Amino acid sequence: MENTVKMPKGYKAAGVSCGIKKNGNKDLALITTDAPATAAGVFTRNIVKGHSLKWSMNHIHQNLIHAVVINSGNANACVGPEGDADAACMAALAAKLLGCEKEQVLLGSTGVIGYRLPMDKIGAGLQDAYSNLSEDGSFQAVSAIMTTDTFPKQLSLDVKLSGKTVTIYGMAKGSGMIHPNMATMIGLLLTDAAISKDLLQKALKSVVNKTFNRISVDGDTSVCDKVLLLANAMAGNREITLEDSDYALFTEGLEAVATTLAKMLAKDGEGATKLIEVNVKHAPDKETANKIANAICKSPLVKTAIFGEDANWGRILTAAGYSGAKFNPDLVDVRIGDLLMCKDGAGVSFDEEKALSVLKGNEIFITIDLKMGDATDTMWTCDLSYDYVKINGSYRT
Amino acid sequence: MENTVKMPKGYKAAGVSCGIKKNGNKDLALITTDAPATAAGVFTRNIVKGHSLKWSMNHIHQNLIHAVVINSGNANACVGPEGDADAACMAALAAKLLGCEKEQVLLGSTGVIGYRLPMDKIGAGLQDAYSNLSEDGSFQAVSAIMTTDTFPKQLSLDVKLSGKTVTIYGMAKGSGMIHPNMATMIGLLLTDAAISKDLLQKALKSVVNKTFNRISVDGDTSVCDKVLLLANAMAGNREITLEDSDYALFTEGLEAVATTLAKMLAKDGEGATKLIEVNVKHAPDKETANKIANAICKSPLVKTAIFGEDANWGRILTAAGYSGAKFNPDLVDVRIGDLLMCKDGAGVSFDEEKALSVLKGNEIFITIDLKMGDATDTMWTCDLSYDYVKINGSYRT
Repeated sequence: MENTVKMPKGYKAAGVSCGIKKNGNKDLALITTDAPATAAGVFTRNIVKGHSLKWSMNHIHQNLIHAVVINSGNANACVGPEGDADAACMAALAAKLLGCEKEQVLLGSTGVIGYRLPMDKIGAGLQDAYSNLSEDGSFQAVSAIMTTDTFPKQLSLDVKLSGKTVTIYGMAKGSGMIHPNMATMIGLLLTDAAISKDLLQKALKSVVNKTFNRISVDGDTSVCDKVLLLANAMAGNREITLEDSDYALFTEGLEAVATTLAKMLAKDGEGATKLIEVNVKHAPDKETANKIANAICKSPLVKTAIFGEDANWGRILTAAGYSGAKFNPDLVDVRIGDLLMCKDGAGVSFDEEKALSVLKGNEIFITIDLKMGDATDTMWTCDLSYDYVKINGSYRT
Repeated sequence: MENTVKMPKGYKAAGVSCGIKKNGNKDLALITTDAPATAAGVFTRNIVKGHSLKWSMNHIHQNLIHAVVINSGNANACVGPEGDADAACMAALAAKLLGCEKEQVLLGSTGVIGYRLPMDKIGAGLQDAYSNLSEDGSFQAVSAIMTTDTFPKQLSLDVKLSGKTVTIYGMAKGSGMIHPNMATMIGLLLTDAAISKDLLQKALKSVVNKTFNRISVDGDTSVCDKVLLLANAMAGNREITLEDSDYALFTEGLEAVATTLAKMLAKDGEGATKLIEVNVKHAPDKETANKIANAICKSPLVKTAIFGEDANWGRILTAAGYSGAKFNPDLVDVRIGDLLMCKDGAGVSFDEEKALSVLKGNEIFITIDLKMGDATDTMWTCDLSYDYVKINGSYRT
């Protein structure tokens, strides 16, 4: 695998500013594929669903996909039937430019909830984006899908499948509200691999469960969150139709791209100063491990303590205790970095200076050892800082 | 009912500084009753339980209670078998002063986790408290159980039962980590009513579910949380042994005391500037209403928006959507104060200036109308401010 940032064969992208965002930043991305692509998708489980998201859910499975349009600054959510009409209109405008059916255009919208999309601006913006489409346009596109993100997130890598090189590219936006089950994040994965529709969906689902569903910034989940995966078969590999070694290599590559993006999202959590990795070890089963990792990642008290570089391991154990998981508290060890702070459920003395030097790092590793079985789970989150409050206290206005 | 702050007949209290807290603030409370009291208790559901809490759980039901000792500054939790021994020792020291059995002394400890109690300081402190016991000592006692609380919380009221006046008094500490199922709060309710043990426990449990279990500051729950209720029968009322009108009046009074304390706790959430009351209306059932109220109260995005006085109703609907409750999002109305912001699941235009004036208040009312049934739920929380982060970033050190 080679790590570069390039889009796979046949994809073009553009990102423009069409005036949805008040500050004039880029807010409309258009990504196209020369050969229509098989597509897979994973969507928010929030029962309130944005109109652009519903459009994509309704059309992803019956159609080969020509393009994806994503706007930022407005979520196109909770505006009533007009929101569905606006979504259809946005897809139709792009389809007209590209000469395809509107059902072959997938959509994403992210931003504030409850306001109609400015369709005139989007119409003009799509024209602009169309005339700027380029094989090198991914940086512009990823810039145009950002909301409170502080840096654009994209990467790509190559995988060799039976002698042919296949490229897997990914972009994502997130920051704030990122949480298991697709929260306020939009991920777009592109590949030139040839792979059957069923296996594409299977690969995406399993990879999302191990990556994007393992990050939490504040425990909120959102109404517009999705990960899309397009495969346009232009790499010329023999189509993957079985779960063979090519499938394994492809999935491994996809997971590597998604893991890196997921960690970028956690690290860029709103106001975050540190990436936190929570590892639960020796749990009796996967569900127990996940419940505990999840509770620790969501705990504002743990996250503020890490921000304050305070080795408050009691809060970690407390979060495990209220997670709903069943375990024996008298067996638990808690470590921050390599430092053992709690052994068999009781505090042990540790070097406070060493603890401070561990906590001064940019990446904090928390390990909970239940000493009960063989199951593990890993999740990522970030600390909770003053800036989280600042950013989220005046998002809408 | 008359609202004053006095302890019921036969109770005395004292609060002293014995040196557990580094800053010299009061940290040890002793509350006694002249006539041994019937007691009821509700305890944390966290599977990690503090040693003092376990002592109280183990002894509350078999014994008439003579005293309650509560220290702040140290949770006596997660220190291993020594923590259980320290709890027994603390009870024994108080019992010796009072001339009762140690099993007749209930305990509470709140503060940092993982460090042993300084038993020498507690021994001297109990002596000091004992010699300061007074009928007017409740303010000292409630001051001594505070951790990050910014004001002491206590009140009392009188209820007439069949011609006799009965007093119900309550004190509580909380702030931070307060959440359904007894988080980082300690509540002590005292009454001079005569009431059977079973009904005392029944009254407490039902009242806690409607009051202390309806507040959320940050969604964390703690290992030392409890509400104790003592009844010493010194009011001279005919003992309540049936669920008759006296029982109803007593429970109503208890609920009034607990509701006021619960709202004080939510209002004093760490760094809080506003009390938020969430009302869910017309839910198909109680569980649905509770899930939605709970998710909204826990959402950091809702809480920071309220802090920022930003009418971001989309976050309220989003939290309802991921709460796990089943409802029809296309029916939902959302109001902040009296202002309708979302009707039938879609945003409606509202007067932004009026919204700002509503949000500038100290008490913010959020109403979600599901238009599905007759069930309701009410919960209280507070906003999430810079100061929450500040207070919790360096609690231990």
